[in-house]
Amino acid sequence: MKLKLTLLFSLVLTTTLLKAQDSLMIRKIYDEELVNGQCYGNLHYLCKNIGQRISGSANAQKAIVWGEKLMKSYGFDTVFLQPVMVPHWVRGAKEEGVIIQGKNRVPVHIAALGMTVATPKNGLTAAIIEVHSLKQLDTLGEKAIKGKIVFFNRPFDPRFIETIQAYGTAGDQRFAGPAAAAKYGAVGVIVRSLTESLDIYPHTGATLYVKDGVNIPAAAISTIDANKLSSMLKGSASIKFYFKQNCQTLPDAPSFNVIGEMKGTEHPNSFIIVGGHLDSWDLAEGAHDDGTGIMQSVEVLRILKVMGYKPKNSIRAVFFINEENGDRGGDKYAELAAQNKEEHIAAIETDLGGFTPRGFGFDGVSATTLQNINNNWGKLLAPYGSNVLVAGGGGSDIGPLKEKSKQVVLIGYLPDSQRYFDVHHTPNDVFENVNKRELELGAASMAALIYLIDQHGF
Amino acid sequence: MKLKLTLLFSLVLTTTLLKAQDSLMIRKIYDEELVNGQCYGNLHYLCKNIGQRISGSANAQKAIVWGEKLMKSYGFDTVFLQPVMVPHWVRGAKEEGVIIQGKNRVPVHIAALGMTVATPKNGLTAAIIEVHSLKQLDTLGEKAIKGKIVFFNRPFDPRFIETIQAYGTAGDQRFAGPAAAAKYGAVGVIVRSLTESLDIYPHTGATLYVKDGVNIPAAAISTIDANKLSSMLKGSASIKFYFKQNCQTLPDAPSFNVIGEMKGTEHPNSFIIVGGHLDSWDLAEGAHDDGTGIMQSVEVLRILKVMGYKPKNSIRAVFFINEENGDRGGDKYAELAAQNKEEHIAAIETDLGGFTPRGFGFDGVSATTLQNINNNWGKLLAPYGSNVLVAGGGGSDIGPLKEKSKQVVLIGYLPDSQRYFDVHHTPNDVFENVNKRELELGAASMAALIYLIDQHGF
Repeated sequence: MKLKLTLLFSLVLTTTLLKAQDSLMIRKIYDEELVNGQCYGNLHYLCKNIGQRISGSANAQKAIVWGEKLMKSYGFDTVFLQPVMVPHWVRGAKEEGVIIQGKNRVPVHIAALGMTVATPKNGLTAAIIEVHSLKQLDTLGEKAIKGKIVFFNRPFDPRFIETIQAYGTAGDQRFAGPAAAAKYGAVGVIVRSLTESLDIYPHTGATLYVKDGVNIPAAAISTIDANKLSSMLKGSASIKFYFKQNCQTLPDAPSFNVIGEMKGTEHPNSFIIVGGHLDSWDLAEGAHDDGTGIMQSVEVLRILKVMGYKPKNSIRAVFFINEENGDRGGDKYAELAAQNKEEHIAAIETDLGGFTPRGFGFDGVSATTLQNINNNWGKLLAPYGSNVLVAGGGGSDIGPLKEKSKQVVLIGYLPDSQRYFDVHHTPNDVFENVNKRELELGAASMAALIYLIDQHGF
Repeated sequence: MKLKLTLLFSLVLTTTLLKAQDSLMIRKIYDEELVNGQCYGNLHYLCKNIGQRISGSANAQKAIVWGEKLMKSYGFDTVFLQPVMVPHWVRGAKEEGVIIQGKNRVPVHIAALGMTVATPKNGLTAAIIEVHSLKQLDTLGEKAIKGKIVFFNRPFDPRFIETIQAYGTAGDQRFAGPAAAAKYGAVGVIVRSLTESLDIYPHTGATLYVKDGVNIPAAAISTIDANKLSSMLKGSASIKFYFKQNCQTLPDAPSFNVIGEMKGTEHPNSFIIVGGHLDSWDLAEGAHDDGTGIMQSVEVLRILKVMGYKPKNSIRAVFFINEENGDRGGDKYAELAAQNKEEHIAAIETDLGGFTPRGFGFDGVSATTLQNINNNWGKLLAPYGSNVLVAGGGGSDIGPLKEKSKQVVLIGYLPDSQRYFDVHHTPNDVFENVNKRELELGAASMAALIYLIDQHGF
C-alpha cells in the first residue's frame, strides 16, 4: 500500500512538473513571438513586393522562390519543393457590369468568378431574374429561366455568431449556382458577394462547372449593387443586365508546394505539419487569404528553432499551392505522404485570416480525447485566449491527408471570424488590414499547440 | 423520502426549464441585435455629424442634446439629464515639435497632453534627456534634469497578452511623469505615445499635475518619432528639442450626464446600469473611445424594450460626461444615487473599444459567487464567445458608485484588446475603424448579462 501511494505520489508529482514545464515553454513561445516576431515583416514583403499570386501566374512562382529562400534563411533541417501541375485561369481585362432600365444605364461593380468562361467578346445582354436558392430554380423551371441571366441574391444570415457559418450556408449560390442555372438554360449568372458587409467590392471565388454541363459566364456583384439591382427589379419587370468578362483557362502550369522541416529526434518519420496556401485570388494582395496563414506557418518553425527546441517528431511548415481553384497542392502533398510512407500525426491548417486566435477545431479525435485535450491543454492555452477547443476543423489543404492516412488528426486554426468576410476575395484584402499582434498571437498559439502534440501526442 | 425526491425532481425540472428559458431569451437578444441593430448607424451619426466632443465644448453639448433626443425616440420610461460642472481644457492651435541637432531640424508629430499648460508664446527650446521610468528621475536628480526637457521613452511591453496591461504598466509616464519631472526642475516633458503600434500618431491623454507643483508643458510624441529622437540622442549629446503648444484651461463649464431608464416592475428603486462616456478627446471622432460604449449602452435598452421585456429592476443606460479629464460625470452620478437612496445592484462600464466581446470582469463578488457565475451563466454565454468571466473589472465612471454603495457589483466589459491602442486618443479613432458586427455582438452580450442579473441577481 505504501509503495503504491509513493508511486501515485510520484506520478502526480511528475504530472505536475510536466505541466509546469509545459506552461513555461508556452510562455517562452509567446515571449519570443511577441518580442521578436518576424511574420508581420515577412507578410509585408509578400504583399508589397510580390502581391497577388494566383495559381499558374508568374507572381505565384515568385512567391514560391521567395518562400523557399526565406525558409532556407531560417536554417531549417530541410527545405524542399514538391512539383505539381496547377490550373491556370486568367481574368483578362477588367469586367463591366450594367443594369439597363430603358435608357437608364447603371454601372455596377462585378468580378468574374474564378474558373468561369468569358462572355461573348462584346458582352452579354439579357433579361435578369432574381432567385434566392438553387431549389427555387427547380420551381421556376426552364420556362422562366431559359435565355436569362440568373441573379442569386440570398444574403448572409447575420444571426450566425461565426461568420464562417453564414458563408457556409450562402456559399452554394457561388459554388454551384452557375452550373445549376445552366441546366435550365440560363445564359449567365450574377451572384451576390459572399459577405454581410455592405460595400462596393465584388467578392470573387471559384465556382464549379459540372461535367457535360454548359459552361456559362458568372460574376460576383458587390452587396451594395446587389441591393440596388434587387430594388430596381422590384420596381420594374423590364430590367436587363449587361456584363462583359474576358477570362480564360490556359493549359495547366507547373508549380510547387514549399516545405520546411525540422527533423524529429525520436520519430523522424512521424510528422506534425502546419500550413496555409501560397496562392491567392488575383484582385489584391491575398493578405488575410492566405498570406497570414503561410507566414504564420513558417513562423511556427522559426520560433521553435530559435528557442533551440528539439522535436520528438518531425515538424513541417507547408505552403500549399492552388487552394483557391483546384486544391492540387493539398492533393499532391497527401499523395506523396502516402507514397513515402510518412506517418502524419496531426495537420493544422490556418486559412481563416490572421485575426486574434480563439482556439482550434479537431477532426479525428474521440469525444473522450477531446475532453482530455480540454482538461489538459485548455488550461495551458487559456491565459492566451486560445482555448476554444472544439470538434470539427480540418480544411481544404489538409483534408486529402485523411483519405490516405486514417490516424491523422486534422486541426483547423480558429481565429476571431468577424472581419474575415469584409476582405475575403476582394481588392481590399491588403496588408494594411492585418494587425501585427493578432497575427503574432496566432503564430504563437499554433507553435504552442504543436509543442503540446509533439510532447504528449493525443 | 418520496416527497423529498419529488421536491428535488421538481426543483431540478424548474432549474432546467429556467435555463432553457434563459438560453432562448439570450438567443432572441442576439437575433434582434444582429438583424435589426441600430448602434452602428447611431455611431455613424455621432462620429460624422457631431465628431469630437471634449468636455465643455460646444460639440459635447450637441452630443448631449442628440443623445437625449435619441433615447426619447426609443420611448424609454424616463430620459433625463444630470447637470454637472466640468473642466474646460482647449488645445488651441496645432502643436509644433522639432528635434534640433546643430543646423539640422527634424519636425516630429506631437500633441499636448490633456490638462497641460502652454509653452511660452514662442515655444520652448531646451536640452533633452531620455529616461525610462519615474524612478530614474530620482537617481538622476536635479543636477541632471534642471532646465531640461525630460523625454519618457519606455515602450509598451509586448509580452502582455492583453494590451490594457501594457497600458497599465507604461501609463505612469503620461499620468504622473510631467509632475515628477517638474519636481527636479524640468522645463517640459515629452512622452512616448502609449501604444505598441509603430505609427506617426501622437496619442494624447490626461496628465495629473500635483498641488503646489510647477505646471510644466507636456506633450505626447508618436512612437516613430520617439524612436527617431532616441536614436539621435544615442549618436549625439548636443540634441535639443523645441516645442510649442497653445493649450489653456478655461473656467469650468456646465454640462450633463444623459440617462435613459426602463422602470423596474418589481423593484423600481433597484438599478442595473450600463454606461460609457460621452466626452472624447479632441483629435478625432472618439469612435472607439467611447462612442462605441455609449451607443452600445443605449442599444442594450433598445433591445430589451423592443423585445417587450419587463425588467424586475430598473435598468439604465448612462452617458457619463468628462471621463477623459476629470471624471466629474461619474462622481456626480454616484453622488446623486446616494442622495436619492437608489439601490444599485450592478453597473457595467463599456470603455475598452467596440471590438469582439470576450467576457466581463467582476469587482465586488466573492470567489464562490464568481464560480457560480461561471457555472451558470458561463455556459449560456459560451455559444456567443462572451464567457471569459473573471475577477477584476470596474472602470473610471462606475468606480465612484462603490464608494457610496458597498453592495454594488462593478462590471467591466472586456472586448478583444489587440487593436484598441492602435487608435486610442489619436486622430485615427474614427468610425471607419469600427466593425459593425463586433460592435453589435458587444451590445448583445451586455443585454444578455443584464437580463441574467435582472432575473437571477448574484
